[in-house]
Amino acid sequence: MSKDQIVIGVDVGGTNTTIGVVDFNNNMLLENSFLTNPEQGANTFANSLSNHINNAYSKYKNDYSLEGIGIAAPGANYLNGIIESPANLKWGNVKFIELMKNHFHVPMALINDANAAALGELQFGSAKGLSNFIVLTLGTGLGTGIVLDGHLLYGENGYAGELGHAIIEKNGRQCNCGKQGCLETYVSASGIRRTVLNLLSNSNEPSELRHMDFESITGKIIGDLGKKNDPIAVKAFNYTGEILGLALSNLVTFFDPKAIILCGGLVEADELLLNPTFTTFEKYLLNIYKGKVKIIKSVMINGKSAVLGACSFIREHISEGIINVN
Amino acid sequence: MSKDQIVIGVDVGGTNTTIGVVDFNNNMLLENSFLTNPEQGANTFANSLSNHINNAYSKYKNDYSLEGIGIAAPGANYLNGIIESPANLKWGNVKFIELMKNHFHVPMALINDANAAALGELQFGSAKGLSNFIVLTLGTGLGTGIVLDGHLLYGENGYAGELGHAIIEKNGRQCNCGKQGCLETYVSASGIRRTVLNLLSNSNEPSELRHMDFESITGKIIGDLGKKNDPIAVKAFNYTGEILGLALSNLVTFFDPKAIILCGGLVEADELLLNPTFTTFEKYLLNIYKGKVKIIKSVMINGKSAVLGACSFIREHISEGIINVN
Repeated sequence: MSKDQIVIGVDVGGTNTTIGVVDFNNNMLLENSFLTNPEQGANTFANSLSNHINNAYSKYKNDYSLEGIGIAAPGANYLNGIIESPANLKWGNVKFIELMKNHFHVPMALINDANAAALGELQFGSAKGLSNFIVLTLGTGLGTGIVLDGHLLYGENGYAGELGHAIIEKNGRQCNCGKQGCLETYVSASGIRRTVLNLLSNSNEPSELRHMDFESITGKIIGDLGKKNDPIAVKAFNYTGEILGLALSNLVTFFDPKAIILCGGLVEADELLLNPTFTTFEKYLLNIYKGKVKIIKSVMINGKSAVLGACSFIREHISEGIINVN
Repeated sequence: MSKDQIVIGVDVGGTNTTIGVVDFNNNMLLENSFLTNPEQGANTFANSLSNHINNAYSKYKNDYSLEGIGIAAPGANYLNGIIESPANLKWGNVKFIELMKNHFHVPMALINDANAAALGELQFGSAKGLSNFIVLTLGTGLGTGIVLDGHLLYGENGYAGELGHAIIEKNGRQCNCGKQGCLETYVSASGIRRTVLNLLSNSNEPSELRHMDFESITGKIIGDLGKKNDPIAVKAFNYTGEILGLALSNLVTFFDPKAIILCGGLVEADELLLNPTFTTFEKYLLNIYKGKVKIIKSVMINGKSAVLGACSFIREHISEGIINVN
């Protein structure tokens, strides 16, 4: 008798990587996270990821066979299996599927992390039943996945939706991508840390953030302090939300979506981020859209949408006979 | 014996309206332009348009039957046949197909003018064979039609691609749409006139533009003076091109197109506009796109792409059995 099949979905983030073991009914049997440590390079990361996948799969291999692995990552190009110069991994171009083939002999496919999140939200999350929506992932960086007229947008090279690298401030903050003033340098976990530094330098207000090692400050720490009304943390979220709200109002004029779904670690700050975002969004929204577009905090736990999306992406590739995309 | 069929395409602009009589082989048998005079209201315009269509058709009615009329207009919503609050016509919401039905009893459909231009460029112009491209129409206003992964983007309400009303300058120039700092208030024929005023106010340089009635200054006049090295006209195009180049580099990060096609009256200024646009575009383009995206001046004569696109749109609707969209 043949075994039931499982797939493994991976979400590679600038800080953490999550893997999920998913059965054919889309139940997440297991979910694990580990530090990406991108500074150790892509080869070391591929080895580490493979170990984690093997460990996870070992618990199920008696009962299930591994059908395939879907890998979501920033800068991932599904057309050629390459992770291309992702700003937050600093790996340059990496033939990631080729690296992973040293470890596994099952079908594998790469997908942009925000596109994976969009597929996950469409099938299991806040975007169920929608034909026009945008998913923003606010983690270490800022990713965007866009579904329009029922299709996930890819574009000519598979890069469509790299909103994080739109310039919103000429001669603004230096970005890892080489440009200045990219949205991601303001609206992301790394962006809000820079905002905190800037606020600390410009004000004399007391703040617990003055007593911390900058490298140890995370989006979560700023969020927790903001909920306790730390004035610098609150101002940092106001500043971030105002930039995000304006960017989202512009996004609406480009894409005419029914909903914008926000996910990722930074969104866990809830109304601390969402209130200034909503207010600014409404202020700058074109009249014809007033009352028509919803901004939604994802109902899926952080990272889960991308893992599930990566699983459904690899399954789709297998069912269409496109395997080992590389 | 049944007659051959023709369709009539209309491109309603903020300044001029163009109608074209097109046979089944897409030959433009006749092309006419007249002043839109939007300040006289939508009813007067519909009467005037109908007279022009009847005059044009009268020359062919012995040999051809009129199959349908496709109407491209800013703010046109193909889903409901309404021209919705177009900033440059100031009509509010107009049930335009309903108005036109008082005059004609053939299938009619509305399409956004920039979307029509995109269809025209795809079938007959610079976008032949492309799956991913953006058409910008730089006329009285700024319109955008976007084809991605082979599909013209519509979005939830049919408004996708209203790039002209993206805010590029917070608290910037007042726009007819009610917002401030919209791209259209800088990059369009009306935008460059405002730039001229601003430059005249800030500098002491001599310029023929100082001796003109502001209301009589057009994009064409500024372009002609620029070609004769009038310093204010040249600076106005540099300023416009720099804003356009940055906006286009951001557009690329959103949509990942193979080409961006520029059409409309302002583009007739050629390198006066295009040189600063290219330079700024290259400067701000994300590394992964360097050398991959072309900016092209449309090979089609001003307005023709929208007229031909409107014709192919109405034909498509008729062949799919969707007639009298309203």
